[in-house]
Amino acid sequence: MATKTKAIVSYDTHANGGWRMEDVTVRAPGEGELLVEMVGSGICHTDVLVGGLPGGAAPIAFYPRVLGHEGGGYVKSIGPGVTVAEPGDPVLLSYAFCQSCAICTAGHHSHCPEFAALNFAGPYATFTDKEGADISGHFFGQSSFAHLSVVKQCSVVNAKGLVRDRRELQLFSPLGCGIQTGAGTIINAAKATPDDIVVVMGLGGVGLSAIMAAKIQRCRMIIGLDRVPSRLALAHDLGATHTINGSTLDPSKTLVETVKALAEGHGPTVTVDTTGVPALIRDGIQFTRNCGRILQVGSAPFDFNLELNTFEFMMSGKQFLGAIEGQAYPPEFVPRMIGWYREGRFPIERFMKLIPAGEFELGLREMHDGTTIKPILCWS
Amino acid sequence: MATKTKAIVSYDTHANGGWRMEDVTVRAPGEGELLVEMVGSGICHTDVLVGGLPGGAAPIAFYPRVLGHEGGGYVKSIGPGVTVAEPGDPVLLSYAFCQSCAICTAGHHSHCPEFAALNFAGPYATFTDKEGADISGHFFGQSSFAHLSVVKQCSVVNAKGLVRDRRELQLFSPLGCGIQTGAGTIINAAKATPDDIVVVMGLGGVGLSAIMAAKIQRCRMIIGLDRVPSRLALAHDLGATHTINGSTLDPSKTLVETVKALAEGHGPTVTVDTTGVPALIRDGIQFTRNCGRILQVGSAPFDFNLELNTFEFMMSGKQFLGAIEGQAYPPEFVPRMIGWYREGRFPIERFMKLIPAGEFELGLREMHDGTTIKPILCWS
Repeated sequence: MATKTKAIVSYDTHANGGWRMEDVTVRAPGEGELLVEMVGSGICHTDVLVGGLPGGAAPIAFYPRVLGHEGGGYVKSIGPGVTVAEPGDPVLLSYAFCQSCAICTAGHHSHCPEFAALNFAGPYATFTDKEGADISGHFFGQSSFAHLSVVKQCSVVNAKGLVRDRRELQLFSPLGCGIQTGAGTIINAAKATPDDIVVVMGLGGVGLSAIMAAKIQRCRMIIGLDRVPSRLALAHDLGATHTINGSTLDPSKTLVETVKALAEGHGPTVTVDTTGVPALIRDGIQFTRNCGRILQVGSAPFDFNLELNTFEFMMSGKQFLGAIEGQAYPPEFVPRMIGWYREGRFPIERFMKLIPAGEFELGLREMHDGTTIKPILCWS
Repeated sequence: MATKTKAIVSYDTHANGGWRMEDVTVRAPGEGELLVEMVGSGICHTDVLVGGLPGGAAPIAFYPRVLGHEGGGYVKSIGPGVTVAEPGDPVLLSYAFCQSCAICTAGHHSHCPEFAALNFAGPYATFTDKEGADISGHFFGQSSFAHLSVVKQCSVVNAKGLVRDRRELQLFSPLGCGIQTGAGTIINAAKATPDDIVVVMGLGGVGLSAIMAAKIQRCRMIIGLDRVPSRLALAHDLGATHTINGSTLDPSKTLVETVKALAEGHGPTVTVDTTGVPALIRDGIQFTRNCGRILQVGSAPFDFNLELNTFEFMMSGKQFLGAIEGQAYPPEFVPRMIGWYREGRFPIERFMKLIPAGEFELGLREMHDGTTIKPILCWS
């Protein structure tokens, strides 16, 4: 049975004024799908990135669609074959993966070869507008910028027994994307230990989560790099032992020299780039110590090709690693993060701001100008 | 006390006819040095590479010098402070490292930041010609293209109790370079397990050692790639489950398609490039499956910059790893390799050829034309 609801529909790029809160109708859940009533939905830079591409500019650029991929809510109804949750269960949503390929079964779900198709592609008829025209859903298997949405079973983490109340479900809604990306990169991808010296470039939600995880792993030095003083101060509070303000460097030193000097002259053993800024990626590879690992987590421009001098790279023994979603398996990793939160070691509320879903433009503006690190749209 | 001996002195590039067997004088060992009487010395492509650079073309390109860095012999005398061996002990020689920096003490000796200075640089006055003019030694801490040479303590693995006779010492002489590079890459750098599907590009001494190590690790599929049928056949004998002849590919398929198809459609989980050929490195990164690791072991041209599309690489979760000397610590790894040899699991004699040191030109020629995989110069 189709149901009336509200959604932020992207009809065009945000810059063109194409994102609007609209009355829509959502279809009933089909095989392996759940109808979820969102209570919270984090805004992530990936929403802004995808909803900023002119239609047709890339295979993943099309409209109209409902974005949003950091949802938390309650199950309203389930389709045939759903075993992950029952109506009434609280759920936290994450990325979609095929579950059956050799990469998924080897435990590398976030690098499923179908990832792009399952998370970005479409259109998948899910919503309809007042005239009955289709609006695509299933963004990251969830399209959580809607009060009610049809969610794929693979994107669901059942949070029954994990979440105490509605407000926690809102606060935890970004665990399955931005937060696990930062924490999982340190723990699953870098496998950081107390022997490691970690540099995190970019202190947004992903970077700050990486800082908290590095502290959980008891890394012996944790260095945060950003240009916004308030974020550097927050990074200190969350576990950074040192910070570098990239906009007030000693003019007699390059960034590479600055970082190396701070990290025992040899540079860090682990470097995480959350920015996707080519100059920083190049510097990060340079300043990482021999045999260190550089983790690429931030989205670089699609057409950016990093040039690596192959002979030098070989001699250095460095490791350049791609990683998305913190290489986390959400049904296992989301509960672990909630556990750290309960122990006071993962105070994600320090960089979140709950705002009414109707004020999504405010959230986007504050995310863009740096006032808010992680805005969470709250549905009611 | 200086001693008369013979050495292959490189006065200029080999192509210019600059390598000559000469009567020379070797100085006495100093602090932390040993005088070693070589019985065997493998020829490695790195000798040919360095001794092929016109003088002054690079900081490591200078003449006259004695190359050779796969030596095995007996200690004749020791300088002050030497504890690794005593006169009469058989020794196998390997690369030099500083032993004291943070990278060495963390166990990453082969990526010591002083590696280039300690193994390639100079000149270090070690030998003199008939007129008393200096000839540089200490290539890889050993300059083992000499009957008698002054060797640094850090390059010495004491083989007492490990080696049965002079012939074994000759046969084992390349363990500390080419052989450990191949085997160590699989075991130490890739940390390959029975879950892995391994592709080895280039089946010289390094590649074939990688094949044997992959078999020791019980990797579930081991694919060798080369253009020489005899090497493909040998790879089969040594453990390859499949081989690909790069010069007789199905013309309807690219190499990337061929390898992926053979490796379950997804490609290998571990790719080792021993060739340094840019086109193969690019293909290897392409055909490796998501979350797989690509190990760069072959020397690419010094000016070759690999272009990696950063966004795609991030999404793939692949890992590009530099590795030299198989990231092996020779005093630990050389005895392990000898253990495998005794068990019949590491039949290195299958691709070695012992030739008199005076016939080094023959060894170089046969290495170049592919007749011999690993020539070992025998001193008597």
